[in-house]
Amino acid sequence: MTTVLFAAGDAAWVEYAPHLRHALAEAGIAADLVTEARPETVDFIVYAPSSPLQDFTPYTRCRAVLSLWAGVERIVGNQSLTQPLCRMVDPGLTEGMVEYVVGHVLRHHLGMDRWIKGATGWEQIVPPLARERRVGLLGLGELGLACARALKALNFDVAGWSRSAKSGLEIPAHHGDAGLEAVLRRSEIVVTLLPRTAETENLLDARRLGWLPSGAVIINPGRGALIDDAALLAALESGAVGHATLDVFRVEPLPDDHPFRSHPRVTVTPHIAADTRASSASRVIVENIGRALAGEPLKHQVDRARGY
Amino acid sequence: MTTVLFAAGDAAWVEYAPHLRHALAEAGIAADLVTEARPETVDFIVYAPSSPLQDFTPYTRCRAVLSLWAGVERIVGNQSLTQPLCRMVDPGLTEGMVEYVVGHVLRHHLGMDRWIKGATGWEQIVPPLARERRVGLLGLGELGLACARALKALNFDVAGWSRSAKSGLEIPAHHGDAGLEAVLRRSEIVVTLLPRTAETENLLDARRLGWLPSGAVIINPGRGALIDDAALLAALESGAVGHATLDVFRVEPLPDDHPFRSHPRVTVTPHIAADTRASSASRVIVENIGRALAGEPLKHQVDRARGY
Repeated sequence: MTTVLFAAGDAAWVEYAPHLRHALAEAGIAADLVTEARPETVDFIVYAPSSPLQDFTPYTRCRAVLSLWAGVERIVGNQSLTQPLCRMVDPGLTEGMVEYVVGHVLRHHLGMDRWIKGATGWEQIVPPLARERRVGLLGLGELGLACARALKALNFDVAGWSRSAKSGLEIPAHHGDAGLEAVLRRSEIVVTLLPRTAETENLLDARRLGWLPSGAVIINPGRGALIDDAALLAALESGAVGHATLDVFRVEPLPDDHPFRSHPRVTVTPHIAADTRASSASRVIVENIGRALAGEPLKHQVDRARGY
Repeated sequence: MTTVLFAAGDAAWVEYAPHLRHALAEAGIAADLVTEARPETVDFIVYAPSSPLQDFTPYTRCRAVLSLWAGVERIVGNQSLTQPLCRMVDPGLTEGMVEYVVGHVLRHHLGMDRWIKGATGWEQIVPPLARERRVGLLGLGELGLACARALKALNFDVAGWSRSAKSGLEIPAHHGDAGLEAVLRRSEIVVTLLPRTAETENLLDARRLGWLPSGAVIINPGRGALIDDAALLAALESGAVGHATLDVFRVEPLPDDHPFRSHPRVTVTPHIAADTRASSASRVIVENIGRALAGEPLKHQVDRARGY
């Protein structure tokens, strides 16, 4: 019998327990799914940082820590965690992210806000076609690539950027510092979908925001720390940045008195771009349990050196 | 030498003349492109209803009237027009329409307006996935089908409807009165992309609006006359319809005192959903001239009986 410890908080337990049990049964895995166990008996840990479990040392038999969250920055630095760690790559989460990103790119491309806010008169402002609109995707992981593909399918002129070189992608991809400048200088709409690491913190600072074409739009559904808040506000003031649509923030919930809240050219969404779905996420967790039991490599295992 | 009469107004002439000349040269067609000619010398007429030309009788040699507009309701009933009439099916127009429709479907799907209008607090209202969102497409011509495909590619649960039966489509398609009820009863978001004919006028009247699930959204980039204005306003008042995003109206420009203007759950866009692009439209016109000269069938020829 395999013991799976659920260490992701009481609310998640209520949501996930039936889906995990269903997925385990579906996969033919005989497992005890529990919220408490003697550490030395645990084979797998389903984890979220909201759990009080912070010391992984006593879990000597544990074969993998399976994160319920896509972002692992709150756990990857934990020195007691020596077991393999896997990120959540939930197809539901990816779909939700694609919908958010494509929706807000189209919103800015079409200049929708003017009409939503009730412009009067009959000024027929016709946007260019998507094939004439340059969009930059910063981050070419699972989420970034899925968004790039969907935008390309709608004819957007997409270019991507990642920290390290990637080949064989369906879109023109740049990397490194020079590549970042090339992508930012061309992009009328920029989407930031990078993990939070020491290297990506304040990636969009005053200098790099200055590379954008005047009036560019930024959409950040990635991590709040990717953008230097003060530099963004200054760039909005000067008109260098035309609009920012932000889903993630350094402090969440975003305080009601934060300058982003009242800025006429900032749209705040409350960290809803992508939400893990219990049903599909449970199947992802169980697939990795099955792989470990069969001696196969784990999917979406975190590289501690890179931090994601 | 082939004589092509441009009868679509002075403003269009300025925009189109260079593109048409370029497309004719590209196709190797020796043609005189003119704005005035003796009627009996004219081989083709490039036409828009804004032209003073209303009597086609003297154009005895004319082999085709090539409309610059996608909608032909202002010309199809002209009894003097016995020459073959072709609608404009511009790839640029189709692309623009797909972008408008997908953009506004995603806007309503994601509930964007709340955030664009500056909701405060941190209420994390997460929309369902597109695969859980039922969208109905009324009209399965070039534009409707292109929109249906793009929405399906984003996983939306799409069903279509057309007046007469169509087979071999990639989406579930219904037709006739019973089919219309089936599509309307299931659709949380309805897009109307039908031509204006005697049969489609007031297609969405009080009775049929009543078939929609409570709070459904209507997006009309087709023709103003497809919807009974008074019935729509009543359905918005009662909550049967949650929101209407309208690009076309019975009277354009829409008067500033029209009730749609001030209704909090109506979005007015000024007939910008799809705009013919001179460059791509000129190639479409010239392709049909080439076909006629080569004795090949014309593309997009209007069926006078159907009216489109």
